[in-house]
Amino acid sequence: MLILGIDPGLAIVGYSLIEKKGNKYRVCDYGVIKTSAGETNSQRLLNIYQELTDLINTYQPEEMAVEELFFNKNAKTAIEVGQARGVILLAGAQAGIKVAEYTPLQVKQSVVGYGRATKDQVQQMVKALLNLSSLPKPDDAADALAVAICHGNSRTIISKVKWEDYL
Amino acid sequence: MLILGIDPGLAIVGYSLIEKKGNKYRVCDYGVIKTSAGETNSQRLLNIYQELTDLINTYQPEEMAVEELFFNKNAKTAIEVGQARGVILLAGAQAGIKVAEYTPLQVKQSVVGYGRATKDQVQQMVKALLNLSSLPKPDDAADALAVAICHGNSRTIISKVKWEDYL
Repeated sequence: MLILGIDPGLAIVGYSLIEKKGNKYRVCDYGVIKTSAGETNSQRLLNIYQELTDLINTYQPEEMAVEELFFNKNAKTAIEVGQARGVILLAGAQAGIKVAEYTPLQVKQSVVGYGRATKDQVQQMVKALLNLSSLPKPDDAADALAVAICHGNSRTIISKVKWEDYL
Repeated sequence: MLILGIDPGLAIVGYSLIEKKGNKYRVCDYGVIKTSAGETNSQRLLNIYQELTDLINTYQPEEMAVEELFFNKNAKTAIEVGQARGVILLAGAQAGIKVAEYTPLQVKQSVVGYGRATKDQVQQMVKALLNLSSLPKPDDAADALAVAICHGNSRTIISKVKWEDYL
């Protein structure tokens, strides 16, 4: 099964594509989609949507895992990231992909076995599980790999998966 | 010039299409796009995107005015509405339409001449300006008509227009 992992944002979206066979994972691709603050908001959303749609068309993932973000008080940031998430979820829905969402705590719990794991601990586990030769970079791509692994684990081991229709 | 007015939301999106010739307005269409809470979040976003894209393809508006929403503390609602706004802005950007945003205060100021106008006062002015036989309903569609008028007025009278690239 091919899983698309997403760490959403407006300036930078982390993505990963990992294949799960049995209990083994294999990396197909990972990286980031960047948008420039010099462009209009809707042009940035269009760029995210187009690059993500290209990735989906190229790799044809079957399921998608999106990291859920929390905001304390900054509604402006929440709306901005919400807008980016909107076009990301749309790209998945248009391709008929099932979308699951996970909180950062669920990702850490699933990948490291400890909900308060550090960023470095998560990246070390991602490196080990995926047989990478070095730590995955940048952080947004590493987070996208972690959320995809979390989804892969959740489907067989954990029953905490928050399917999209739970929202 | 044909203006598309939008009052964004996840459960209900108000839309309007009004034509401005000189200082006169003419209504082409208005109404709402509704999505069901029984559907997944991404399916609801897909429905909004598809219905809005159909409207844009049918009427080919040249400019788009979107009401800006404020949230005090509820980040969850802000993210949800943000996601809906994301697919709305995307639909506009894909069609190459210029997008402007206005706060509720700017809309009231522009349509009624008074930033603290009541909902009924706004609807009475919308009815008068557009020569409607009755008050526009539902409220979301009336708000979409008001923001489109605000944009029409702003282009010639007010210089407070907040173009998308100002964000």
